Amino acid sequence: MAVYTDLSDAELEAFLAAYDLGAPVSFKGIAEGVENSNFVLETAKGRFILTVYERRVREADLPFFLSLMEWLADRGFPSARPIADKSGQRLGRVRDRPAAIISFLPGLSVRRPTPEHCAGAGVGLSGLHQAAEGFPASRPNDLGAASWKRLFKGLEVRAEALRGGLADEVASDLDQLERAWPRQLPSGVVHADWFPDNVFFRSRAFAGAIDFYFAANDLLAYDLAIALNAWCFDDDGGFSTPRARALVDGYERGRPLSAAERAGLPLLAQGAAMRFFLTRLADWGDDRPGALVRPKDPLEFERRLAFHRRAVRAGGGLDGLLAA
Amino acid sequence: MAVYTDLSDAELEAFLAAYDLGAPVSFKGIAEGVENSNFVLETAKGRFILTVYERRVREADLPFFLSLMEWLADRGFPSARPIADKSGQRLGRVRDRPAAIISFLPGLSVRRPTPEHCAGAGVGLSGLHQAAEGFPASRPNDLGAASWKRLFKGLEVRAEALRGGLADEVASDLDQLERAWPRQLPSGVVHADWFPDNVFFRSRAFAGAIDFYFAANDLLAYDLAIALNAWCFDDDGGFSTPRARALVDGYERGRPLSAAERAGLPLLAQGAAMRFFLTRLADWGDDRPGALVRPKDPLEFERRLAFHRRAVRAGGGLDGLLAA
Repeated sequence: MAVYTDLSDAELEAFLAAYDLGAPVSFKGIAEGVENSNFVLETAKGRFILTVYERRVREADLPFFLSLMEWLADRGFPSARPIADKSGQRLGRVRDRPAAIISFLPGLSVRRPTPEHCAGAGVGLSGLHQAAEGFPASRPNDLGAASWKRLFKGLEVRAEALRGGLADEVASDLDQLERAWPRQLPSGVVHADWFPDNVFFRSRAFAGAIDFYFAANDLLAYDLAIALNAWCFDDDGGFSTPRARALVDGYERGRPLSAAERAGLPLLAQGAAMRFFLTRLADWGDDRPGALVRPKDPLEFERRLAFHRRAVRAGGGLDGLLAA
Repeated sequence: MAVYTDLSDAELEAFLAAYDLGAPVSFKGIAEGVENSNFVLETAKGRFILTVYERRVREADLPFFLSLMEWLADRGFPSARPIADKSGQRLGRVRDRPAAIISFLPGLSVRRPTPEHCAGAGVGLSGLHQAAEGFPASRPNDLGAASWKRLFKGLEVRAEALRGGLADEVASDLDQLERAWPRQLPSGVVHADWFPDNVFFRSRAFAGAIDFYFAANDLLAYDLAIALNAWCFDDDGGFSTPRARALVDGYERGRPLSAAERAGLPLLAQGAAMRFFLTRLADWGDDRPGALVRPKDPLEFERRLAFHRRAVRAGGGLDGLLAA
């Protein structure tokens, strides 16, 4: 939730001059998108989101994200669609930052997902995986399994400060994940941030997804593993098997999992917990003055990491996890 | 710019159950309103603003503000209109805070007003003063001239820390304002916060006003004096006579000023600068964790205070000010 770059009416007008959208009718900064500044823009042509891309998004990656959104929207997946300016460009600049206008996607995100929401989140995720098939561009996942040891480097002291013994546990997890990572599973374009914040519902049914700014090529089941972490834990850290079952069932309505994917899911989920633990650990204590956003507690994902560590040891693959 | 209270989908649904607006279609926290949390809400019935009233607004005052908005909207003044729930109530509760739904008012606020914008701001302000005539409720201005000595009490050290000698200057201003305040001028309902943030334009013409949460009964010309402070100074502190002339001309299109009002305006403007200097001074260093808003620099209004002090000494009333 943030507006890092607050645009003036004059800056907006100058930016809009490149587009064929008419004069602005209303323009409001919204508390959406942790990494970017977002505004709801209304013109005679309709409602849009104007996004100013901030420091964490690499400018060179933006064409990948924007073409992916367009590709998905073209194939009937409910993603916002980037709007081209008069010269056909989808990426502009404002206040020396890259910026884009995308269509307004209706729907509401949910705070405490029910199993019904989780089913919808699963349906949406496999819908995305299927719609993205054949997308010609690719982008390595710079926050994928291959990056985690590097991410952890230098953060050992911070991990240890969170809880004594944690640095060694994480190092041992990282060894195990490197050794056992199921690199041969089906891969494709993943959203890589399929959290409730980024998934919209209407009348409790999946209605769309936003924030494709972590999308990359990776294992498809890893995306589901991220979603298991994001949708199926209570605030107190408890794992909800009804929600996890609903998420997987929803996912499989669009794309049934292979036996190897089912077997690998607990480890993939451990890896997903590791990925969010590590980036939160890196952000922890990294206060950005004026960012209007507070770092998220890394211990939330440390607890999930511990849960998955036990599930991997217990064996039994996805079925073991869902029976837990 | 803030969202202090972030509502979940479940809290929104529970709140909306009292209204006849249908299910929510989208819901986004917006960076608007320094004192309250605001959300753009869309339902099948249209677009609305949901406001959760935070600590600075006194709950007992809310019926005054909401009936005023309705009164103004009924009389053709472009104010957002409070929406009644099924039982006719305009004020509800959410997360144990008072909350209301008001209609969505299109338009954009401007950052650097041109003389044309200032003329529109003046037209809007006298339009408000005229539309509010006959409004049956009243509310004393708790941030009006009578409150300033009390507001300054205990802040002398903080003023002195901003600039050596400032505490004595402010105390002397306060004596002078008390002695010379033109209490006999025409009074009525004033907006009392007529800043560019709160005034909307469409195609450079006045289109509406928001944030009536400082409205009160006070001298009408004092409202114009607040607007002179809010609209007619540059970022570097310089006073723009073209903008001030445009603001006053715009105002007088709706309501010509009396000779006594014109004579009193420099002192009223000094008082208005004092009011914003004092509340900013009180907020200065008063960091609210999680408020996502930074206190505004009191020195900005200290400089305006000094400008008006000189203008009052120079004499010549409004004409002197506009000739400066």
